Amino acid sequence: MPSRDDNGGPSIRPVTALTDPPPVPIETRDAILDQYLVDETGRPGRRPRGIAAVTSTDDVVALVDWARRTRTPLIARGAGTSLEGHLLARGDELIVDLSAADAIVDISPDDFTATVQPGLTRTALNAAAAEYGLQFTVDPGADASLGGMAATNASGTTTVRYGGMRANVLALQAVFADGTAARLGRPVRKTSSGYDLKDLLIGSAGTLGIITELTVRLHPIPEWLRSLRISFPSVADAVAAAVEMLGLALPVSRLELVDAVSMAAINAFRDADYAEAPALFIDLEAASEPAAVADEREITRVCRAHDAIDIATARTHGERHTLWEDRHNLFFALKAASPGHRFMVTDTAVPFSRIADAVDAATRLGGQFGLAVSVAGHIGDGNVHSIVPYTDAQAEAAQQYSDQVVRHALAVGGTATGEHGIGLAKKRYLPEEHGPAVAIMAAIKRALDPDNLLNPGKIVDP
Amino acid sequence: MPSRDDNGGPSIRPVTALTDPPPVPIETRDAILDQYLVDETGRPGRRPRGIAAVTSTDDVVALVDWARRTRTPLIARGAGTSLEGHLLARGDELIVDLSAADAIVDISPDDFTATVQPGLTRTALNAAAAEYGLQFTVDPGADASLGGMAATNASGTTTVRYGGMRANVLALQAVFADGTAARLGRPVRKTSSGYDLKDLLIGSAGTLGIITELTVRLHPIPEWLRSLRISFPSVADAVAAAVEMLGLALPVSRLELVDAVSMAAINAFRDADYAEAPALFIDLEAASEPAAVADEREITRVCRAHDAIDIATARTHGERHTLWEDRHNLFFALKAASPGHRFMVTDTAVPFSRIADAVDAATRLGGQFGLAVSVAGHIGDGNVHSIVPYTDAQAEAAQQYSDQVVRHALAVGGTATGEHGIGLAKKRYLPEEHGPAVAIMAAIKRALDPDNLLNPGKIVDP
Repeated sequence: MPSRDDNGGPSIRPVTALTDPPPVPIETRDAILDQYLVDETGRPGRRPRGIAAVTSTDDVVALVDWARRTRTPLIARGAGTSLEGHLLARGDELIVDLSAADAIVDISPDDFTATVQPGLTRTALNAAAAEYGLQFTVDPGADASLGGMAATNASGTTTVRYGGMRANVLALQAVFADGTAARLGRPVRKTSSGYDLKDLLIGSAGTLGIITELTVRLHPIPEWLRSLRISFPSVADAVAAAVEMLGLALPVSRLELVDAVSMAAINAFRDADYAEAPALFIDLEAASEPAAVADEREITRVCRAHDAIDIATARTHGERHTLWEDRHNLFFALKAASPGHRFMVTDTAVPFSRIADAVDAATRLGGQFGLAVSVAGHIGDGNVHSIVPYTDAQAEAAQQYSDQVVRHALAVGGTATGEHGIGLAKKRYLPEEHGPAVAIMAAIKRALDPDNLLNPGKIVDP
Repeated sequence: MPSRDDNGGPSIRPVTALTDPPPVPIETRDAILDQYLVDETGRPGRRPRGIAAVTSTDDVVALVDWARRTRTPLIARGAGTSLEGHLLARGDELIVDLSAADAIVDISPDDFTATVQPGLTRTALNAAAAEYGLQFTVDPGADASLGGMAATNASGTTTVRYGGMRANVLALQAVFADGTAARLGRPVRKTSSGYDLKDLLIGSAGTLGIITELTVRLHPIPEWLRSLRISFPSVADAVAAAVEMLGLALPVSRLELVDAVSMAAINAFRDADYAEAPALFIDLEAASEPAAVADEREITRVCRAHDAIDIATARTHGERHTLWEDRHNLFFALKAASPGHRFMVTDTAVPFSRIADAVDAATRLGGQFGLAVSVAGHIGDGNVHSIVPYTDAQAEAAQQYSDQVVRHALAVGGTATGEHGIGLAKKRYLPEEHGPAVAIMAAIKRALDPDNLLNPGKIVDP
């Protein structure tokens, strides 16, 4: 769907230096390399030079030192769930596969922290943390690696309460282009010491350094949870109810909008008969049962005041699981509704007062481009996803649709990407979103990676 | 108290270019400049070259362009409440006084945001936000300017619930050393677009750019608040109760530890008879009265299980004000208890499991150096302040005390500064805390300020 220009650019052909063999074995069989030709969305890249599996910081230091000597560009990769082309080769980059660097170094329940290798996935961390009554709260949907989630500054359904990766990663270890392995940040709740390199690396998609260790916050699993699914006559009503809940400081930990098209797809997928109307999916957390009861009552009061059609409440673990399963399966339901299609997901975020606008625009533009768009958003963060099925014949329309959605968000003060990152696919919007700050980003890239070896061409050109 | 070496360094003597007059009037009378010779802690600097009052981004751009041509180093200054020497001249820097750049550009209650100039103080912003039922939650105690709070990455009593400046500043405008005025971040709840320059500038103390506008988050003022003051037999008991509350996810928005010495000073100051034992000061927020009642009951249960001596609960606004007045007046109470002394405040933060350790070490080291140390901490963040009165004869002992406290924190994985910043006073600890990352910080400083014009010598040398 993106034009070839996004992925092209000058080919980078390192000289193979037989006198300087790589420090770790490199997979070079075409049949293997061809598995890296496209990303999760079907966006095309080139065949990488090879795959180097690493399991330690020392491995990465040795590989970066070798890459610098041989001028071999590197793409760090975890679980491979990027949606924006972060992991696609443009020339003949070497993929640094960190998926086997997946150890839990330490869980410190008294500190509410865990220290992990970057290849560990979030569900693996959560399985281990649950033994202490703790959880890692960033939930982007996919079972991404923690290193990849940091590299893209991922967030997700619980961000309204717990923040995204920047709020939940306390410290990192990263290997820079000059071979320096440095620790960034400290494993404490707050620090004002020195420049915030930890947050600079988060979201930099492996273009400034390769993350080799993370210390993350863990949060207690709350004792009392309620989940609600509430239908409204219109998106505007649902959004108004959501904003009022936030204004009342109700302790919601998930606050998701699903539009009528999506609810129809869920009905078809599950053989259910939910109202085919815009709905909020809500989690509510409390530290006691009376608080849970009172907060649930307050949420239903707010929703009724905004003309709620239907309110379903889940109180037990089983009921909650069933309620959320629909939201989690939404993408599969939409895939089932449009067999044989590819899918694009937009990722804009806008100020709260423009959420209803953004959802309207997403729906209206879908009609304009003849696309069966559905909308689901992390509404508590102003993050609106359009899910767009398209055929090969519609690829250009889907691209134009995405472009219009982004331009709408930028025009109202929003961002091209709330949580997926810039990668290759959103690079074209960087100047419009950031203006003169793009030159400052480029200056930092040149200062930290003067040979442009780390994921070249992603986010910003030096 | 710090040795002269901290503030000295090479004198920077710009050539006065009569052919290139400054774009804004510059105050140069010695009687005025002498007011800038020491900071709030009495730490000495040099007489600055002059004071340039600015009120707009355009003023700052013009001044930075002039400074670059004339090689005049600049120190940006807001309310002047830095505790770590950020604002002291080392050579003959020009002070850029932003205190009159104090306009509220916009309050957008529907977006839960405000856009302000950097000289605006937090209490002025809160007065304006309160009209919409909203508040700016970062509370460092002093009535600091928003720009200064961003420059030092301030936080304070409410950080346990609302985070510090990085979590509450969504976007900045800053002027860089090349005269570029750039917008960093976007006024939305989350973004993964480009490098995180917004958070890089926050905490950089005017060494990378001068902040000229901020868009901050506002939070609803909660409907139901309870405050508690609870005494314990020991610091260890108080800390254990605090950590258990956090483990139960109780909705505390302030969680402060005050030691027995401090409580004795409060008794003397107020003619009160509180238990002279370690105490927690707690705020609890709820969205309904039943939730407030239930959460209060749960907090008192936890504290009793940790042998609480005395529990005082404040429910009305008046009762809450009285309860917190003691905590807010603590510094004045300690000043009254040690007339004629200067004061130093340490600012380490440590992992949760080391808080009791850190408080013990602070008290023990006080005895060792013959200093009447008291301890008060933002315990919900692991941030421990020792307040140290000292005479001229004790200046060296106070410095050695501070040094030992920092080294203890660093040895257990903590930070030299949780919220005050590095400035000049903590610069010596940067290598021990950050190791090879200091060279990366210096590379960024060189890339963004190649002539070392912006607050030279603070945080890191290029």
